[in-house]
Amino acid sequence: MQVNGTAHTTIAYDPQQQCVRIIDQTLLPHRFEIIPLQSLHEFCAAISDMQVRGAPLIGITAAYGLALSLHHDASAANEQAATEQLLATRPTAVNLRWAITRVQNAIKGLAEPERAAAALQEAEAMRLEDSATCEAIGEHGLSMLQTLDHSRPINILTHCNAGWLATVDWGTALAPIYKAHQAGLDIHIWVDETRPRNQGASLTAWELQQQGIPHTVIADNTGGHLMQQGMVDLCLVGSDRTTASGDVCNKIGTYLKALAASDNHIPFYVALPASTIDWEIDDGLRDIPIEQRSAKEVTHITGINQHGELHEVQLVANSPACNYAFDVTPARLVSGLITEHGIYQADKISLQGLKRQR
Amino acid sequence: MQVNGTAHTTIAYDPQQQCVRIIDQTLLPHRFEIIPLQSLHEFCAAISDMQVRGAPLIGITAAYGLALSLHHDASAANEQAATEQLLATRPTAVNLRWAITRVQNAIKGLAEPERAAAALQEAEAMRLEDSATCEAIGEHGLSMLQTLDHSRPINILTHCNAGWLATVDWGTALAPIYKAHQAGLDIHIWVDETRPRNQGASLTAWELQQQGIPHTVIADNTGGHLMQQGMVDLCLVGSDRTTASGDVCNKIGTYLKALAASDNHIPFYVALPASTIDWEIDDGLRDIPIEQRSAKEVTHITGINQHGELHEVQLVANSPACNYAFDVTPARLVSGLITEHGIYQADKISLQGLKRQR
Repeated sequence: MQVNGTAHTTIAYDPQQQCVRIIDQTLLPHRFEIIPLQSLHEFCAAISDMQVRGAPLIGITAAYGLALSLHHDASAANEQAATEQLLATRPTAVNLRWAITRVQNAIKGLAEPERAAAALQEAEAMRLEDSATCEAIGEHGLSMLQTLDHSRPINILTHCNAGWLATVDWGTALAPIYKAHQAGLDIHIWVDETRPRNQGASLTAWELQQQGIPHTVIADNTGGHLMQQGMVDLCLVGSDRTTASGDVCNKIGTYLKALAASDNHIPFYVALPASTIDWEIDDGLRDIPIEQRSAKEVTHITGINQHGELHEVQLVANSPACNYAFDVTPARLVSGLITEHGIYQADKISLQGLKRQR
Repeated sequence: MQVNGTAHTTIAYDPQQQCVRIIDQTLLPHRFEIIPLQSLHEFCAAISDMQVRGAPLIGITAAYGLALSLHHDASAANEQAATEQLLATRPTAVNLRWAITRVQNAIKGLAEPERAAAALQEAEAMRLEDSATCEAIGEHGLSMLQTLDHSRPINILTHCNAGWLATVDWGTALAPIYKAHQAGLDIHIWVDETRPRNQGASLTAWELQQQGIPHTVIADNTGGHLMQQGMVDLCLVGSDRTTASGDVCNKIGTYLKALAASDNHIPFYVALPASTIDWEIDDGLRDIPIEQRSAKEVTHITGINQHGELHEVQLVANSPACNYAFDVTPARLVSGLITEHGIYQADKISLQGLKRQR
C-alpha cells in the first residue's frame, strides 16, 4: 500500500545484501523506518518486540528467519534450534507454527547444500501468496459491504491493526475497506486506539491516513456508546487464531466490542486467512492459551514530545499491572468469517466446507 | 482517607485564608499537591480542568464556589452569573445543578449581608453530609459483599474512579471496598485504567495503594477476558447520573463491562448517592446528553519521564480523534443500586421506594 505516495510492502528479501527488510512498526506513526534483519536473533527480536506483528506477517517473518538461519548453517540440528527459538517468540499466533512447518516440509529430504535456497524459495512463495490471500479477502469483504445501505457513509468500527502492516500487503480486516475505498464507497472508520500497545491509534490510523480514508481515533471504551447511538453500521476485525467452531482469538478487547455489536444488532465480521484457523481445537475459551505480555506495556507509554522525539513516560505510579494480550470472542457473537475463499458462518459445519476448499 | 499515613479529605474550607483547599487531582498519582481556590474563575477552572472530578465532589466544589463568589458580591445578579458559569463547567453532572440549587434555596429571601455566610454554611453542611452519605453507601455495600463466598479472595472489577477522590471522603464504588478491607475481608481489585484520562490507573490505583488494598491495573480491554475466565466475582462502579428507571450514565466504557458481566453471569453493582438520580428522566439513552471533551485527551497523554518530571507526549500522529466522556448502561444490565438508603433494584418501582425515603 501507499506510504507518502509510494507503494510499499511490510517485508521483502534483498538478494544483494542477503537480508530481509521490514518496517520497524514500533516507530510508527511517528517515524517510517525500514530496517534489515539478518541473524536469527534479529528475526526473533523483531517478532517478540513487535517490530513486526499481526498473525500473517509474523508467520512470513519466521519463515524468512528460518531460511536465512539455514543459509548460515543448514544442518538438521540448526533447523531444530532455530525452529524452537522462533516458535517461542509469540505463543498465540497459530500461523507462526504453520509458516515454519511449511518451510520444514519444503526442505524435507533435501541435501544440505540445497536446503537454504529451497527454504528461501518457500518463504518468497508464502509472501506472494499472503498478498494474494489478503486481496481475495478484500474482494469478498467488498461484496458484503456493497450489500449495505449506501445512502449515507458506512461507519465501520475496527479494533487493533489488521491492516497491511499486519500482513505483507492489503491486510485482513482493512482489505475490504481499501477495496471499498477504491470502489468509491463512502466509508468512515472508527479506530479503537487498542491499549495497551495502541496499534489502532499508531498503525491503523496511520494506514488509513496514508490511503486518504476518513477515520476517527477513539478510546477503546467508546465503541459501545457509538453503537447504542446508531453511529456504527458494522464491526470488522482480524483474528490471530480461529477455532474449528469459529471462536475468534484476537487482540484483547475484541470480545467487548462483539458483545456491544450483538446487543445493538450490528453485524460483527472477522476477516482472516484460512491459515489462522486451528483445526485441532473447538473451544477457544478452554483451549487457547492467552499470551501475557510485560506489565510495562500498561504502566508506560511512548509518544513524541514537543521536539518530535520519541519519549517514554510512566503512567502508573506504584501499582502492579497485568497485560493479557488476547481474548476469545465466542462464535455465537460473530456474524461471519471473511476468508480468501469466501464468507463463512462461524460454526463447525460451515467451516468444514472451508476446510474441504483448501 | 489516608495519604502517606495521614487522614485527608478532598476539599475543605479554610476560614483564616477565606479559601477552599482541594487536592489537584490532575497531578496524581505522581504528585500530591493541595491548592487553594478563591475566585469564581478558579472554581470553574478546577471543575472543567478536572482538578476536582467525580459527581459528588463537583457538586460540593460548585457550592463552595457560589458561596465564595457571594462573599465578594452578594447581589442577585452575581448569584445568577456565578450559577450560570458554574453550571456550564460540566454538562453531564446532575448534582452540579442539585448542589447549586441547594445553596440558592438556603439563601432565598435573606438580606444581602446575610447571604454569603448562609451559602457557606450550606456548602459546609453538604460537605459533611456527603461524607456521611458515602460512609452509609460503604456500609450497605459491605453487607452485600459479606453475602459472597469468602473461601478465597473476592475479585472486584471497577472502572474509572468512584473513590474518595470523587467525593469528600470514602467514595461511592470504593466505599464498600474500604469498609470490606477494614472488616478484614480478603479482597483484590481489578482497576480499569479508564482511557482517555486514566482515572483508574492514576486515581483509583493510587487510592488503593495508599490504603494498602491489593489491586492490579489493567487496560480497559481486559475485563471481558477476566470475566470469561472466572477471575471477577463482582463489578462495582459509580454513576454520574442515574435515571428514574435505573439507567446509569457513568464514565465511557462502563456499558461494555456491564455487557460482559451480564454475558458471564457476574453481578454488576452501581454505587451512588441518591442525589445523582435525575427523577425527571426515564430513558438514559434518549435523554442524557453525553459530554464530548477535547480530542487532545485521546491524542496526547501525560506521565512522568525518567527524571520524575511530568511530561506530555503525543500518541496519534495526523489523525482526528473524538472523545465522548460517558455512556449509558441500561437498567437491565444493573444488578443493584447501592445508595445511602440501602440497595435498590434498577427499576422504576424500586426507585420510587427510594424517592419516598428521601
